[in-house]
Amino acid sequence: MSLSEVFKKGNKGYTIIAGCGRLGASLANQLSDQGRKVLIIDCDEKSFRKLSPDFGGIALKGNATEIPVLEEADIRKANIVIAVTNNDNTNVMIAQIAKEIFDIEHVIARLYDPDRECVYRELEINTICPVVLSINKVNQLMHEA
Amino acid sequence: MSLSEVFKKGNKGYTIIAGCGRLGASLANQLSDQGRKVLIIDCDEKSFRKLSPDFGGIALKGNATEIPVLEEADIRKANIVIAVTNNDNTNVMIAQIAKEIFDIEHVIARLYDPDRECVYRELEINTICPVVLSINKVNQLMHEA
Repeated sequence: MSLSEVFKKGNKGYTIIAGCGRLGASLANQLSDQGRKVLIIDCDEKSFRKLSPDFGGIALKGNATEIPVLEEADIRKANIVIAVTNNDNTNVMIAQIAKEIFDIEHVIARLYDPDRECVYRELEINTICPVVLSINKVNQLMHEA
Repeated sequence: MSLSEVFKKGNKGYTIIAGCGRLGASLANQLSDQGRKVLIIDCDEKSFRKLSPDFGGIALKGNATEIPVLEEADIRKANIVIAVTNNDNTNVMIAQIAKEIFDIEHVIARLYDPDRECVYRELEINTICPVVLSINKVNQLMHEA
């Protein structure tokens, strides 16, 4: 099933987001607003303040690289795992655990270091690299101006 | 003159980048590779290690919010100023100084906090917001999958 099909399924699609920073919280708020089932994990409970008051998902305090935490998050039922903590190594680890141990179909991870992107591609993990996206945006601004 | 025209002019276009982090260094390397005149400013000399050995521009140690540093960088000759330090307030300040005091035509600033984007728009400063770009990319991955 494609990611878009998963999301169209509404409650039947279940997304786990690791890391409740600006990106994680914004994604969680957006997916929740769309009526999708979302669970967000972060070690720091204070980070959940970034979630909207209307957030309809679950916020779980814990380390998303630990198997018992992922089991508590009911990862086996998830179709999508998005790893967006502020640490590339942590995101790599979460993505690999989701893919290899829990056989999650769709895994997306943020990478601050663009040089690592090729590693992820081999592991069939979708990456978001803010530096690459920002460079593309600067180039676009140059051409639009 | 449009940004793309400035860049096409090669040596006649002069770009100042404030902040030699991953994004600043990558942009500096890219613009230098394209034969463009680039100067990059950072408070921390060690950050210049991120520049490519082929970098053909100038690396200036200093605080880009200080007028004398910007004058040393010959800012009056610059067509484009890109503020990409790791601090939003610093980027706001550099962008405003470039626009208001030195009348730089094209100013681009990175913003970690997406809520500030509207302020910049009023000031006619182009913004790059990695969180917004990343959210768009996740949405794109969902639809492409």
